[in-house]
Amino acid sequence: MAVEQAKQRVLTGITTTGTPHLGNYVGAIRPAINESQSADFDSFFFLADYHALIKCQDPKLVHQSAREIAATWIALGLDTDRCTFYRQSDVPEITELSWILSCVCAKGLMNRAHAYKAAVQENEDKGEDADFGITMGLFSYPVLMAADILAFNANRVPVGRDQIQHIEMARDMAQRFNHIYGDTFALPEAVIDDNVAVLSGLDGRKMSKSYGNTIPLFLPEKKLQKHINKIKTNLLEPGEPKDPDTSTVFEIWCAFADQSQRQEMRAKFEQGIAWGQAKKDLFELINSELSEARQRYEEIIEDGTQLDAVLAAGAEKARAEAAKLVSKARKAVGLASFA
Amino acid sequence: MAVEQAKQRVLTGITTTGTPHLGNYVGAIRPAINESQSADFDSFFFLADYHALIKCQDPKLVHQSAREIAATWIALGLDTDRCTFYRQSDVPEITELSWILSCVCAKGLMNRAHAYKAAVQENEDKGEDADFGITMGLFSYPVLMAADILAFNANRVPVGRDQIQHIEMARDMAQRFNHIYGDTFALPEAVIDDNVAVLSGLDGRKMSKSYGNTIPLFLPEKKLQKHINKIKTNLLEPGEPKDPDTSTVFEIWCAFADQSQRQEMRAKFEQGIAWGQAKKDLFELINSELSEARQRYEEIIEDGTQLDAVLAAGAEKARAEAAKLVSKARKAVGLASFA
Repeated sequence: MAVEQAKQRVLTGITTTGTPHLGNYVGAIRPAINESQSADFDSFFFLADYHALIKCQDPKLVHQSAREIAATWIALGLDTDRCTFYRQSDVPEITELSWILSCVCAKGLMNRAHAYKAAVQENEDKGEDADFGITMGLFSYPVLMAADILAFNANRVPVGRDQIQHIEMARDMAQRFNHIYGDTFALPEAVIDDNVAVLSGLDGRKMSKSYGNTIPLFLPEKKLQKHINKIKTNLLEPGEPKDPDTSTVFEIWCAFADQSQRQEMRAKFEQGIAWGQAKKDLFELINSELSEARQRYEEIIEDGTQLDAVLAAGAEKARAEAAKLVSKARKAVGLASFA
Repeated sequence: MAVEQAKQRVLTGITTTGTPHLGNYVGAIRPAINESQSADFDSFFFLADYHALIKCQDPKLVHQSAREIAATWIALGLDTDRCTFYRQSDVPEITELSWILSCVCAKGLMNRAHAYKAAVQENEDKGEDADFGITMGLFSYPVLMAADILAFNANRVPVGRDQIQHIEMARDMAQRFNHIYGDTFALPEAVIDDNVAVLSGLDGRKMSKSYGNTIPLFLPEKKLQKHINKIKTNLLEPGEPKDPDTSTVFEIWCAFADQSQRQEMRAKFEQGIAWGQAKKDLFELINSELSEARQRYEEIIEDGTQLDAVLAAGAEKARAEAAKLVSKARKAVGLASFA
């Protein structure tokens, strides 16, 4: 490997589309923030707002989503002094490196990217031209993602299974660059956590923006209670024993409860707790975990000044790191000064 | 058109591969430097070193060529206070814009690019995979070129006929961006000069690096004379009348001579000037035009400090311009600050 660092570097990209919901919180945000407290790792978190442009051409949504997501992570206690938290689009070194990498990246590699192939398949199924509606952003996305990773010599990249291929492509570009120009980039590894907590949504399917079944993370209290009341249950009356293991209410309860609270609620289900009461209890539990963060969130999002300041400081830290690598890569390919 | 500027902006990219030769000088460099003196235009000249990476993976050659070409333009009197002279890779705004444009650029547009199609054809003729040896740099080059142009709201882009398509693609991206996000970019126009002076090389074919028939521009005097002596002539003896209109020696003479010098040499040809004498005269003529510039060139190239200083000043001017446009484009797509 090209470069040795004192600590392993973990890099996590946060897609800035949509409003964070409880499923994002339980599955991704909470564990990431907890892990960032570990002294074993040097953590980098970035808002992938350049990637958002591929999916969304509505500037208000792009902006609003980045605002909400940045405020969410800060409100939930991401220690931005300890980790490096930045917006992708604040680090021009990333697009510079993206071009340099594109000159060692085979086009054939991109032809085989899953996301691109799926889009082509969809077009062909509809009888459209293979590349109908596909932008260069979608097609060359894995090059930008390689630059996201390699610009920071990230060793570990936590991703879902659908993203493993992108990490392999980043490794491919790093290896090819190192082969042609000499050791420059560390080879990143995908870190797959198959135990990612998946939360069910209002209708019992996986909580997901695309199903329209989410509970947004920082709803005001009344709205949070209302959303929780909408969680689908069966028709069992108060007093009738209920099966906790098939209940979305109980599942979400467990995502916020400690061991003894889980046992208590399991017992209440068996004793026939009314759905209305169970949902009230669930609201109280979630609210107790989130209410302080919600207050911070509302303050942060109300006035963008703190957000701008945190992101400006993050950009400075990130650029200092990326500049080292990109400057090395620039020299390696022959783009150095002349004196 | 989106933006009105006081003066028309002319943007010229200079590919940084190879060593400048007399053909480059007569056909491109001398007329461009002369035109840059015109008060009608606001001229931008840039060393396209990111483009060079597509063609050349030898860092020493990339670096050496940029050095020679930058030194050449400065030595020949490009007025870098009057125009904006910079290295593409010194302006990160260009790759930032390139990503933003890629998100509005149809992949299908790139599929139809002449350079890409020619490379595919060549592969297919050889029975190779269509994309064999083709990098993402080659494939997405027109997006970077659009960013080169649009980042400066350049109105006029002097190009050869083979580059017209790239300007049309840049217009296409500008129009699409303006359509989705509101007027942001001026629409560039290709300026084709079909009267570009073409110089013949040592063997009588067009002077070109690929034919190996060039006379490098800033050869030391002795070497320049030696190269000129190698220009192919016929076997006519001294005293025998010679046809100026089929002679490479006469053609090159005319590229450096004024009207009366041309008439004098035409008369000498008819009077049977010896080839050796004609070549000696040619050397004197070229040398008189180039010797001062050659001395400056040697000083500039010897020590890179002046080059770095000129390019740093150019980068500052260029970035100030590009930052305006790119900042506007960033806001338009939703990448603004939050306060």
